[in-house]
Amino acid sequence: MSLGPGALECLTLEAREALAAAQVVVGYHTYLELIAPLLQGKEVVSSGMKAEMARGQAAILRARQGERVALVSSGDAGIYGMAGLVLELAAAQGLRVSTPEAAGEADFILEVIPGIPALAAGAALLGAPLMHDFAVISLSDLLTPWEVIRKRVVAAAEGDFVIVLYNPKSRKRDWQLAQVVDLLLSHRNPDTPVGVVRRARRPGEEVGLTTLRKLPEETVDMQTLIIVGNSQTFRYGDYLITPRGYLAKYQVPSGERPRGLTAEWGGGE
Amino acid sequence: MSLGPGALECLTLEAREALAAAQVVVGYHTYLELIAPLLQGKEVVSSGMKAEMARGQAAILRARQGERVALVSSGDAGIYGMAGLVLELAAAQGLRVSTPEAAGEADFILEVIPGIPALAAGAALLGAPLMHDFAVISLSDLLTPWEVIRKRVVAAAEGDFVIVLYNPKSRKRDWQLAQVVDLLLSHRNPDTPVGVVRRARRPGEEVGLTTLRKLPEETVDMQTLIIVGNSQTFRYGDYLITPRGYLAKYQVPSGERPRGLTAEWGGGE
Repeated sequence: MSLGPGALECLTLEAREALAAAQVVVGYHTYLELIAPLLQGKEVVSSGMKAEMARGQAAILRARQGERVALVSSGDAGIYGMAGLVLELAAAQGLRVSTPEAAGEADFILEVIPGIPALAAGAALLGAPLMHDFAVISLSDLLTPWEVIRKRVVAAAEGDFVIVLYNPKSRKRDWQLAQVVDLLLSHRNPDTPVGVVRRARRPGEEVGLTTLRKLPEETVDMQTLIIVGNSQTFRYGDYLITPRGYLAKYQVPSGERPRGLTAEWGGGE
Repeated sequence: MSLGPGALECLTLEAREALAAAQVVVGYHTYLELIAPLLQGKEVVSSGMKAEMARGQAAILRARQGERVALVSSGDAGIYGMAGLVLELAAAQGLRVSTPEAAGEADFILEVIPGIPALAAGAALLGAPLMHDFAVISLSDLLTPWEVIRKRVVAAAEGDFVIVLYNPKSRKRDWQLAQVVDLLLSHRNPDTPVGVVRRARRPGEEVGLTTLRKLPEETVDMQTLIIVGNSQTFRYGDYLITPRGYLAKYQVPSGERPRGLTAEWGGGE
């Protein structure tokens, strides 16, 4: 299940009820601290950062014993989160997994409870950078060869996608972001607006606006989300705006405000 | 502000509080019906589907008169939603917009309240298709030239992104999806798993699994979200799984379950 970005007010009612109904709550200790008030009287199984496999396996084991388990993920459990790991573990072991609605025998029942992903929490703090097509890329090469990541960055640049970068840097990975900026600079204006959000909706939140050229000067860590604008994204005061339409009658020079707005706006249809 | 996919239990506490505090609620009437129990005693300004500009302008007008306005968007307001339109309108009119935290003079104060986007609600119903890098593309060519959309589809295919398609079809737009499938088939295995989610977390919800080759046979409309797997995505029972890592020791043949799982799993770091 998903916690959202961290602040308790960003939890959905559904997520709260799942926590309330759980007999066991399994999670990374830093995330569990964010929801400590909701864990009173629960059995809590917590572990450190690189122990995702152990947490997933523990959750499956307890669920197979008939207990109601809440395996928590920050952001959305389905976006670089724990939902996929549990399903991968189940598949690897040939376990039958069932949705709550499906009838029939199953080794355990799995419900994926969505939450506000970091990309939405971060974008909201920046204004509206994700109003048009975007690509989401993790720069962590722990499990993905750098060549795959590199190819995706180039493809996203060629497609003029707004680009959301997860895991831009960690203590052990410090060169990837600079390479990505170099790759993007060969496709995109150096003045392209970039938003940098650290610890969105958590204590210590920081929101910054910069440009592609200056991005390497920003303080970036593994709790940072970076949003690189497309060719149409512009900065307006403290906000980033990616216009919804490419057919708009006004032209927005990079970094400046539009001069007039006359086009019809189609919305999400 | 964001409503999430539709079901009241998917609203965050923050969104509920914003609605409760609002003097005026502005929105598309179909979305307002989803939250009718929360609108008791409120002034409600509702309008039809193509009136986004009018709704945005009405919200700005009322906010400038000093009223607390909740302008609602389904899903996340920052993803093809109303947040960007309001900011575009403000920029075009040279209005000063301020965040609630910022001091100083402003024509109105804007807070973007995030919500669960359709892509997360849909993915959760499908299992875990968005566990690795993905691209989000709207197929609506009302405001975006088809050539831009086409180029993005090709770029996303070349980058082996999982692909999320918004607005795949409407009554007036019926040929785009077939063209996209043709484009993707020249890059991706015809047996690539595809998830089709209609009206996620709303009355009439439908969830289907198919393949890229068979996608054109599906019933698809403007309330449908489509998720096309990448080269690693596989189907396991009723679930779609995109493995988190490309370095995993097991190889997953398209459409089959993995044989063993021995690799370390890096998670979101």
